[in-house]
Amino acid sequence: MITGAWGTKALDAARKVGAANAVWDDSAQGYRSTPNELIVSSNLSYLHVTSNETIQGVQFFTDPVAPDGIPLICDMSSDIASRPIRIENYDLVYGGAQKNIGPAGVTIVIISERLLDRVPANQHAMLDYRLLAKNKSLYNTPPCFSIYVSGLVYQHLLATGGLEAAGRRNAEKAAVVYEAIDQSNGFYIGHANTSHRSLMNVTFNLADENLSKSFLQESTAAGLDGLKGHRDVGGFRASIYNAMPLEGCVRLAEFMADFAARH
Amino acid sequence: MITGAWGTKALDAARKVGAANAVWDDSAQGYRSTPNELIVSSNLSYLHVTSNETIQGVQFFTDPVAPDGIPLICDMSSDIASRPIRIENYDLVYGGAQKNIGPAGVTIVIISERLLDRVPANQHAMLDYRLLAKNKSLYNTPPCFSIYVSGLVYQHLLATGGLEAAGRRNAEKAAVVYEAIDQSNGFYIGHANTSHRSLMNVTFNLADENLSKSFLQESTAAGLDGLKGHRDVGGFRASIYNAMPLEGCVRLAEFMADFAARH
Repeated sequence: MITGAWGTKALDAARKVGAANAVWDDSAQGYRSTPNELIVSSNLSYLHVTSNETIQGVQFFTDPVAPDGIPLICDMSSDIASRPIRIENYDLVYGGAQKNIGPAGVTIVIISERLLDRVPANQHAMLDYRLLAKNKSLYNTPPCFSIYVSGLVYQHLLATGGLEAAGRRNAEKAAVVYEAIDQSNGFYIGHANTSHRSLMNVTFNLADENLSKSFLQESTAAGLDGLKGHRDVGGFRASIYNAMPLEGCVRLAEFMADFAARH
Repeated sequence: MITGAWGTKALDAARKVGAANAVWDDSAQGYRSTPNELIVSSNLSYLHVTSNETIQGVQFFTDPVAPDGIPLICDMSSDIASRPIRIENYDLVYGGAQKNIGPAGVTIVIISERLLDRVPANQHAMLDYRLLAKNKSLYNTPPCFSIYVSGLVYQHLLATGGLEAAGRRNAEKAAVVYEAIDQSNGFYIGHANTSHRSLMNVTFNLADENLSKSFLQESTAAGLDGLKGHRDVGGFRASIYNAMPLEGCVRLAEFMADFAARH
């Protein structure tokens, strides 16, 4: 189920192994939505979704549910630990730590026993989740420092209300920036459709593209860094992962209102 | 070419992909040597060696040279950056950073163009060195912190005389411990044959195994930690990578002489 650039990469990877098809692909619309219902053929081996697409700024708002018996696999790299999930919906969740959890170099995998049983014989050791599980994630020398820092982040998350509270904070942060878009009378145009907007990556364009260079220069000068959109889609992107405080979003919204007023 | 436990693991991994054979295997002798000459059939696709075996304490003392045209592949995980190497002898060198270079989580690969050309189509992305090289090691989000710390270690190595000086220091350190074995009148027995002894991992046993428990307890109490040998071979192992100063080896040798005198 392809809702953006990362889902496309997952499909490419799957096609190296066997016949993989997109049962839903929003590319014709420029990747602005997730499907409203996961109605798919029931003879699939599995269904893969990307819970949040960082480049297009599209996110599933509720945990998807695959049809009966079909294993649901989710790339949760960019929103894992940003809000609660219904882990029982998934057979396999995987994600890099580097957005919301800890230093780059750790990948988290949560997998069901029934999928572990399906690891093919002669799988390469580093891709063999059954081997890694059997060895309690110590088959290879683990990246100790990155895991240690991730542990500190988990402790911090727990001490500040857990994932319920993190989810509320992230929703509040995103609302501040989306409000700046929606109240600009069309000066800013959000990329994702309203009901599929990401709480992690706010993507938008200026209606007058001639102002884009000024917007980037002035925002950077104001200390609002990294707003340039991914080169594949252009425009602007505010990435507001767990580590971004509400104050950062408020400052961005104030800058956006001020810039719009001046232009 | 199997000189210990890691070579055995490499052979197992190779057999998942195709027909792989050991052209030399020292298991019958308990892995105490590297081959004196690399005389092998010239119709091999490649030759794989493990430059240092951490568990048995066996190390190649000079860079191996494969027969004409045969790509030489080396797992250098436990001695890379401990001494100079003749990189032109190898088509592929790989190694984890965690022994001599930096935090666990970085793997270093040095590969020739001719081997890059042999990456099979549809290789998994994370195992596709051609893809990783094409993307200048930035196909995935790299483990930034671990790479940064590795850079600091390289700077330190350069500032302290480079790999030539590191090799001299490591040879001097190992000599101190091996001398404690050789001058003990048979109280301590080295595992590896004298001319194949590792400069990274000194492996030995007590002639009287009944004293092993006391040796471990007393050495640990004296601050000489981690001397227990790997469970596969028993005995004792002093791992003296780059980060171990000469003083650590001197203290171990003094303890060994004292312990032998008392027993």
